[in-house]
Amino acid sequence: MKYDLYVVTSSELSRGRDTLEVVQAALAGGATIIQLREKHWPARKLVEVGREIRRLTLKAGAGFIVNDRLDVALALEADGVHIGQEDLPVDVARSLLGPGKILGVSVGSVEEAKEAIAQGADYLGVGSIFATTSKADAGPPVGVELIRQIKEKVNVPVVGIGGINLSNAAQVIEAGADGVAVISAVVSADDIESAARALLKVVQATKARLARPR
Amino acid sequence: MKYDLYVVTSSELSRGRDTLEVVQAALAGGATIIQLREKHWPARKLVEVGREIRRLTLKAGAGFIVNDRLDVALALEADGVHIGQEDLPVDVARSLLGPGKILGVSVGSVEEAKEAIAQGADYLGVGSIFATTSKADAGPPVGVELIRQIKEKVNVPVVGIGGINLSNAAQVIEAGADGVAVISAVVSADDIESAARALLKVVQATKARLARPR
Repeated sequence: MKYDLYVVTSSELSRGRDTLEVVQAALAGGATIIQLREKHWPARKLVEVGREIRRLTLKAGAGFIVNDRLDVALALEADGVHIGQEDLPVDVARSLLGPGKILGVSVGSVEEAKEAIAQGADYLGVGSIFATTSKADAGPPVGVELIRQIKEKVNVPVVGIGGINLSNAAQVIEAGADGVAVISAVVSADDIESAARALLKVVQATKARLARPR
Repeated sequence: MKYDLYVVTSSELSRGRDTLEVVQAALAGGATIIQLREKHWPARKLVEVGREIRRLTLKAGAGFIVNDRLDVALALEADGVHIGQEDLPVDVARSLLGPGKILGVSVGSVEEAKEAIAQGADYLGVGSIFATTSKADAGPPVGVELIRQIKEKVNVPVVGIGGINLSNAAQVIEAGADGVAVISAVVSADDIESAARALLKVVQATKARLARPR
């Protein structure tokens, strides 16, 4: 999986636009992973819309992750599931998911990061990096420094999440993140495709700059 | 599984009493199945409390069913999962659950009942039989007649649900139900254990009466 631009859906923040329309535009702009995260949708709707997202992401060569509902992730043959600290226990999710699927875990501290990896996480969502209004339960911002600290301790892909936009995405990558996870910076944008493209460009340009011998 | 007295949890309707206290009292009164149904709980809490319910139900020789969250049901090694018309599609749930677990489906018509069985349901929750305030999404009452109609068409256990209490439980069994599913009649009762015991007695007495040659 390429973690460069990890777009998380939110129908509430999509300004009336259909989730599939949002996903399609985000993929057109180069999103490398789509996470289906709709806390208020019943499972049947998640499955119905998720089937289309699975089709679109396969076509685009992007990853597809389902938030929280591991059963829905399995039903959709998604690439994996992403869980937070209030979702399934990490070890339980790992065991239900089997070894072939990707397990992502949201963490807000080095301790949580180490614990998540010990219990079987494949990648980490670290945040909230900056202040955000997209997630009611996001907690206070932790800053990009936490990415650096976590990357020193664990050897798995890390994406920053929370308040990331065009103006601060480079800092997240500079701190060692493998990508940026965004909700409103893409799904609330006037032009979703362009917003995704611009973010991806910043991520990739920053990675290229960091990779150059100094 | 014995479907005689199928008690569905609801922390909102338990008048401040702890879910485990409610479950314990319901089991002491003879509940034959406990369904963990807490729509607003995150998965981690469902798993934590569910582990205790698994322990209590095994000790009591009662069944344990998890509402909606098939992943939680698997994690808890519950006896099965119960899904409604907005939850996972029945065929999807059947396939994720495997053949060894029980799949219950809520239906509100003969058509839904036939469809659920065709897709792999093991038992049906039919309702709302009477008017209820326990489920916001319960729909208008269908009456006991629907149980009779469904029992004529399908050969699986059926429990009536919705507005069932001590005064009308006998009608539900007389219409052909294998048991009664209740929320508030047990979890909101002053004395949960006595309420469960009284309901079970009505169900079993009615079954005994119906079984007698006339």
